[in-house]
Amino acid sequence: MTRVSDHERADDDADAGTESDADRDRVPVLLVRGDREYLVEPGDEMGTDLGVLEVPEDVHSGDTLETHLGDEFQVRRLRGPDLFHHFERTGAPMVPRDIGLVLGETGIAGGDRVLDAGTGTGVLAALMARAGAEVVTYEQDPEFADVARENMALGGVEDAVDVRTGDVLEDVDALEPSSFDVLTLDTADAPAMVEHAPDLLVDGGFVAVYSPFIESTREVAETAREVGLANITTRETIQREMQFDERGSRPSTAPVGHTGYLTIARNE
Amino acid sequence: MTRVSDHERADDDADAGTESDADRDRVPVLLVRGDREYLVEPGDEMGTDLGVLEVPEDVHSGDTLETHLGDEFQVRRLRGPDLFHHFERTGAPMVPRDIGLVLGETGIAGGDRVLDAGTGTGVLAALMARAGAEVVTYEQDPEFADVARENMALGGVEDAVDVRTGDVLEDVDALEPSSFDVLTLDTADAPAMVEHAPDLLVDGGFVAVYSPFIESTREVAETAREVGLANITTRETIQREMQFDERGSRPSTAPVGHTGYLTIARNE
Amino acid sequence: MTRVSDHERADDDADAGTESDADRDRVPVLLVRGDREYLVEPGDEMGTDLGVLEVPEDVHSGDTLETHLGDEFQVRRLRGPDLFHHFERTGAPMVPRDIGLVLGETGIAGGDRVLDAGTGTGVLAALMARAGAEVVTYEQDPEFADVARENMALGGVEDAVDVRTGDVLEDVDALEPSSFDVLTLDTADAPAMVEHAPDLLVDGGFVAVYSPFIESTREVAETAREVGLANITTRETIQREMQFDERGSRPSTAPVGHTGYLTIARNE
Amino acid sequence: MTRVSDHERADDDADAGTESDADRDRVPVLLVRGDREYLVEPGDEMGTDLGVLEVPEDVHSGDTLETHLGDEFQVRRLRGPDLFHHFERTGAPMVPRDIGLVLGETGIAGGDRVLDAGTGTGVLAALMARAGAEVVTYEQDPEFADVARENMALGGVEDAVDVRTGDVLEDVDALEPSSFDVLTLDTADAPAMVEHAPDLLVDGGFVAVYSPFIESTREVAETAREVGLANITTRETIQREMQFDERGSRPSTAPVGHTGYLTIARNE
Repeated sequence: MTRVSDHERADDDADAGTESDADRDRVPVLLVRGDREYLVEPGDEMGTDLGVLEVPEDVHSGDTLETHLGDEFQVRRLRGPDLFHHFERTGAPMVPRDIGLVLGETGIAGGDRVLDAGTGTGVLAALMARAGAEVVTYEQDPEFADVARENMALGGVEDAVDVRTGDVLEDVDALEPSSFDVLTLDTADAPAMVEHAPDLLVDGGFVAVYSPFIESTREVAETAREVGLANITTRETIQREMQFDERGSRPSTAPVGHTGYLTIARNE
Repeated sequence: MTRVSDHERADDDADAGTESDADRDRVPVLLVRGDREYLVEPGDEMGTDLGVLEVPEDVHSGDTLETHLGDEFQVRRLRGPDLFHHFERTGAPMVPRDIGLVLGETGIAGGDRVLDAGTGTGVLAALMARAGAEVVTYEQDPEFADVARENMALGGVEDAVDVRTGDVLEDVDALEPSSFDVLTLDTADAPAMVEHAPDLLVDGGFVAVYSPFIESTREVAETAREVGLANITTRETIQREMQFDERGSRPSTAPVGHTGYLTIARNE
Repeated sequence: MTRVSDHERADDDADAGTESDADRDRVPVLLVRGDREYLVEPGDEMGTDLGVLEVPEDVHSGDTLETHLGDEFQVRRLRGPDLFHHFERTGAPMVPRDIGLVLGETGIAGGDRVLDAGTGTGVLAALMARAGAEVVTYEQDPEFADVARENMALGGVEDAVDVRTGDVLEDVDALEPSSFDVLTLDTADAPAMVEHAPDLLVDGGFVAVYSPFIESTREVAETAREVGLANITTRETIQREMQFDERGSRPSTAPVGHTGYLTIARNE
Repeated sequence: MTRVSDHERADDDADAGTESDADRDRVPVLLVRGDREYLVEPGDEMGTDLGVLEVPEDVHSGDTLETHLGDEFQVRRLRGPDLFHHFERTGAPMVPRDIGLVLGETGIAGGDRVLDAGTGTGVLAALMARAGAEVVTYEQDPEFADVARENMALGGVEDAVDVRTGDVLEDVDALEPSSFDVLTLDTADAPAMVEHAPDLLVDGGFVAVYSPFIESTREVAETAREVGLANITTRETIQREMQFDERGSRPSTAPVGHTGYLTIARNE
């Protein structure tokens, strides 16, 4: 048991069971000064409006770096929600709420193998990788796939996420049967992939599908039933932000986002 | 890059970057036959109504085991959502949806250090550990803490979760400053702990608080503001299950759970 | 202007602009004693477990009546929500919330002529009549129509609601063009009736349709667009009951009813 | 029974049970031409950008009027939802949805006597009057009260709504006990008025309170309990607009309005 509070943080890193010091040193970090925020890799030289920053190879969160003009930046570990701001977008990325619902309902964890279709910006793939999964993700648009690969590097998960250009449906016969723990789908032809879920998933594996429209959602749920998946549920999520001021507490009238209906089913 | 589909699953395990074969062999697995489901550790001897099962030390998901009477059970890897069924409960555990919202909004990932207060059944702590975090969690009730420790073993995360018996507020001075990436609170005195968030969290770290009542939620949000945390938002989540039958598609009229209001804030 | 607080209630009735004293005397009233509640008409003789009650022809709300055994009942005016308890049901009646939404969105008022299809128990028709509308309502099931007629008498609105047995679609040519201010539909074939809305409604008249399923709702909205209705909106309503106790305030986890999607459109 | 479809509309008016021909002739009507819409009274002379319109004393819905330049306007009966566009606003008026919820939950009907506090723009008072109620409404701001009086004339309900300038709490002793069927409150000091509800309401009468904040809502509900009102429920209403296009059907991401929490209680 690593006792977090008993020794220095730097020592602590050496003991960490899940990644070595060397691993951590190679991953990108955030440089922050007020509203300025840069995502950099160890060894980078970064030009800012406050001067040039040289990022040491052994940079650590908690360090302070100085530009050549003497302005200080704090070094921070990159966290999942930061990826929403720093990833280059090729469309509207899935929001933290919805990524969280996928993580929670499927139990993404270390050692998982995930097949993801509809990479898009790649935020879901990156956050699953950060939670310990190895992800194979398919993106049909070659330019989007290139951006997603750069995003994986930016997120420090290029070794855990294999971004493949193409249509997963055409590749499905080449994928190892019963080799995935979770299948995540955010594509227009999700129902066609759900047909393959029983073959691709291990026993007890989950499929999670986001569909923006009720008609496609229904098709997903019906296909899941037809191919014999279990525990099929489709949910819609409504979130309301609360407002607290001197007059009292009330729900905000801000727009309530609708990413889509989330259908979860299990291979039993 | 581990290419999931190119070789056998057994070989794959050997290459996995995040856990060695040896690690996987020691973790509990599920034995499943129809509606029967047992959570066992390698080496266990398990008495069932279908006879005795001996679990080999090198048991693997995908294996088939036989009782001494010849009845077969499938071996499955344990997934996060299984913990809801197999953990001994000392109260209503946080549901997968809400655990997912915490994971998604705080970006729990490998290498994170989390301070959790209000262990309860321990499902949140276990799922954060399964996503790569080292967790220190406080439970005031000694019996609940004992059950939580057994649950951590059952979930295969006893090395990653330190269940401490006691009141985190009394221990707070002994905790290393700036040593936690995330602080998760599900206790009646959450506001008092939020006061310590700026000291305990690294720069960029998150605090996530579940409060069932609007009055305590407001106190949490106000305390977060007073101590200078940033990006404070409180959200209520409503989920509706959809029903699809031959007549059409409609939201179910099933009860809509309310675990509480989730407040997220960041240490900037 | 009738000044409500300046004179006795009995005198007040005489001045009322909208109904004469004689009218009020003929309408049913509620007799209430604790949990016992009877809906009776002036002149009725009512057998109760506390003895026989003779209801005078000039019974008034606020009176106290006695059974022949000397037990007292209070006389109350019937209010709309009471109809939910006293109408004989031939199916699940529309709830006060949904009736209210129809009243509010269409502005049901004195002098309105309403065509209603799918009478059912008749609560919507009765409450529109109580708000001043003359209602023609169609019910295909002859037995249901008979019950609805009895319910209209029970609700004191038999002069304002014409319950017709049959399919409104077969009668549609016999209905006077441009003779209805509002068209309310709660039937499976609502889209077919929406086609006739521009002919049946006066300029500025509204159509309001309850459809339980999204597919039929979409068909209603599309038909409304095709026949040139304006301001077409479909809304789903979610209500949560709040709970206040000594621990704090929170939404109840009680089931959230879904009567259906309400589509409103206007004839312009 | 007035048979709506059997004779001419004009004759029909003569039979109408709830208002005489003379009454209808005096009420304001809408003149509509495309996007142009004027609310006028019989006998008015109206200057428009298309010329002058003289409104006959016996103007009827369905008529066509011409300006002196020969441009035609259609004559329409005023409907409740039109008041939102034509009333002069002294604040955000209650929306049709919320007015409908009050109408449905309290069963506003012909012959009701309503005490309303917090007149504001007066839309709620006007729509209750249009549904047959006599309304006494209090507005503390003298200028707002003047505007509300003009709005009542504009809505054709000046005989049914008595707009009083002042604080209802100061007048409460002068109000006749047990003289109101419904009490509607949309004021900051609603809890103080709820204390008087048992005295002011008839047996079986309802109180309906809109409170924007949860703290004041709780105070309303607790006061209702303390003074012995029955069937106390507080509800929050969330409405989502549905979108139908060629891709499919989904909830809109438009803002979800929150007028407030509606508390209903009954005097038993």
